[in-house]
Amino acid sequence: MVKEISGGVCAPKGFKANGVHCGIRKNKIKKDLALIVAEKRCAVACVYTTNLVKGAPILVTQKNVADGYAQAVIVNSGNANTCNADGVEIAKGMCALVEQYTGIAAGDVVVASTGVIGQKLSLQPIADGMTELCAGLGENSTAAAEAIMTTDTVKKEISFSFPLGGKECRIGAICKGVGMICPNMATMLMFVTTDAAISPDMLKRALRADVKESLNMLSVDRDTSTNDTLCIMASGLAGNEEITYPNADYKAFCKALRAVTTAMCRCLARDGEGATKLLECKVSGAKSKKDARLAAKSVINSNLLKAAMFGQDANWGRVLCALGYSGAKLDVTKIGVAFRSKAGGVTVCENGMGVEFSEEVAKKVLSEQEIVIDVQLNDGRYGATAWGCDLTYDYVKINGDYRT
Amino acid sequence: MVKEISGGVCAPKGFKANGVHCGIRKNKIKKDLALIVAEKRCAVACVYTTNLVKGAPILVTQKNVADGYAQAVIVNSGNANTCNADGVEIAKGMCALVEQYTGIAAGDVVVASTGVIGQKLSLQPIADGMTELCAGLGENSTAAAEAIMTTDTVKKEISFSFPLGGKECRIGAICKGVGMICPNMATMLMFVTTDAAISPDMLKRALRADVKESLNMLSVDRDTSTNDTLCIMASGLAGNEEITYPNADYKAFCKALRAVTTAMCRCLARDGEGATKLLECKVSGAKSKKDARLAAKSVINSNLLKAAMFGQDANWGRVLCALGYSGAKLDVTKIGVAFRSKAGGVTVCENGMGVEFSEEVAKKVLSEQEIVIDVQLNDGRYGATAWGCDLTYDYVKINGDYRT
Repeated sequence: MVKEISGGVCAPKGFKANGVHCGIRKNKIKKDLALIVAEKRCAVACVYTTNLVKGAPILVTQKNVADGYAQAVIVNSGNANTCNADGVEIAKGMCALVEQYTGIAAGDVVVASTGVIGQKLSLQPIADGMTELCAGLGENSTAAAEAIMTTDTVKKEISFSFPLGGKECRIGAICKGVGMICPNMATMLMFVTTDAAISPDMLKRALRADVKESLNMLSVDRDTSTNDTLCIMASGLAGNEEITYPNADYKAFCKALRAVTTAMCRCLARDGEGATKLLECKVSGAKSKKDARLAAKSVINSNLLKAAMFGQDANWGRVLCALGYSGAKLDVTKIGVAFRSKAGGVTVCENGMGVEFSEEVAKKVLSEQEIVIDVQLNDGRYGATAWGCDLTYDYVKINGDYRT
Repeated sequence: MVKEISGGVCAPKGFKANGVHCGIRKNKIKKDLALIVAEKRCAVACVYTTNLVKGAPILVTQKNVADGYAQAVIVNSGNANTCNADGVEIAKGMCALVEQYTGIAAGDVVVASTGVIGQKLSLQPIADGMTELCAGLGENSTAAAEAIMTTDTVKKEISFSFPLGGKECRIGAICKGVGMICPNMATMLMFVTTDAAISPDMLKRALRADVKESLNMLSVDRDTSTNDTLCIMASGLAGNEEITYPNADYKAFCKALRAVTTAMCRCLARDGEGATKLLECKVSGAKSKKDARLAAKSVINSNLLKAAMFGQDANWGRVLCALGYSGAKLDVTKIGVAFRSKAGGVTVCENGMGVEFSEEVAKKVLSEQEIVIDVQLNDGRYGATAWGCDLTYDYVKINGDYRT
């Protein structure tokens, strides 16, 4: 019933967006300022990085959404506004600019920044760009998605429609983030809009539950960013009966939300810095949900396995190794491992021991761009999926000299 | 008083060693079988990997050293003898071969293997190599050090002399390991000999205390190996009064042991797979020892910082980021960061905020092969040091196709 549609964050009723180049980034082809505005105040829920070093915009956003409502999102790329003495002042200044140019109260603005840490962010280019940014507000989800990109190679937006209490609702999102990705309660930056009617409390509950299975199971490089922010705004304009307790509609809403967040996880992992392959580790048969998550994430995080996948080398010992130090409770003698892709599958380990397999077939399986690492723990009934990417020369290149 | 001397594991009285090529590895230039034998049974202490997937040799060694004594070490490279159905049988076979060729009881043999996981290890080449291996037993620590190398580019051996209760004692070591390095109670493979007289209990105590500050603070790639083994044998032939309780001699012994293990940590990190730089993160001013260790290790483990160091880019925001997600209790607004090397030093962050610095000077500092990342938490009196290396194209290359 969840159906992909076009429109990104503008697909749900009541949202407009735009993105422009205002001059924070030197490269004039790259947009660096995005704005999403809602027709009316929306129920809002956010999750942020667990990093103790938090970007100044997060501190300001936390205050602004404390009452459960927000009406706009302003985001810049090219500078994270983090570890700067005047960071909070600048972030507040961005909210004030939104009020000045749109009439939406500064206290109803979600603000976010992404880019280099520890370099001063000037308000001037943002102020200079506001006229153009606001003039272009409309069905421009794509421009907004482009404006929040840093080392991303593709823009990331998606939208779905789904029925809720007899009404058709829509949910859409844009996001960015390809390095410093190991979200813990949130990813780099992701903004979700929906026209479903749902109370702030239920929206918060849905988001918290969702990230455990979606964004917190994603890792590009094990580096939890300082600026991770995931924000969802619900306008309620779809006309469904407001969700105020965990009923069937709540479940339907969560399912749609999950469709958005897992699709975005796959986008983010596939576009991981330098990545040539999307890796998906599916763990089944774990003793508990926690064990399943620990196991899946440990495999996805192994530099050695990531490099082997880049080299299309079925070095399954590295999967076993990563499972062994994952912290998950497991019985090594029960573990089965297979690699799968569009080109087929190959079982490489059973009962914790290697099995004969064709290196030729394995090479073919691993030559694809999407690889599933199938781990059967055969020790329980819980499962989890984690997403990541391979480790390549280009990851090193991109991060060897990011600031210049 | 601890003085570097030559001789490696043969520097202490009562030890002979050798290393040969027996045919486990295809490349005939590479030695692949090492043996260390002691004149008499030695007090022994070992620490092993915490990985739940454990190499078969570890299971056999644990049994053999359970009584606190051992007299020989046999090690092969080229195959980890891990995740093989007949692994324990093969490891026992290696001990039996030592008994057959040297007369040392199989139950007094420490056995270790290193190389690819999940490929069958045949006893045949080892049996074939025993005659040559034993015939050459002597002051051949270097040959043994060479025979345990895998992707190591340099052999790793060291020895020191130190006074103990009026007697001159010696301690020496060989070790290997440049990838799958994030020891947890042990590193890949390290064998230490000493002629100091010390009881098995005190030797175990000294080793357990030592690794917390030495090998457990080393990380090349965050991948805790399945075969980590650190073994120390004490022959007692130096003639000092046996250490049986934690007296001044015990402290002097621990100091000498620390000299060996930290020197080896630096060797291992410097030769990390693909590494061009040794990174040393020195944390001071932490609230507790645990916080200091967590902070130092988190910095050393950050792929993003490792890549920045490779690129000689003073991207200190990545240091702050890694500290923030380290799990250490810290006050972000008190943190100071400086980079130091032979070429000088540069302070890049104070009170959690960036400070003006010369990019030119920073580049010069970071162009050296040994970089100290100096982190002052200014929040307590505890410190810790962690060792690691940069992340380079060659790490990816080496691990993209390790098995072939």
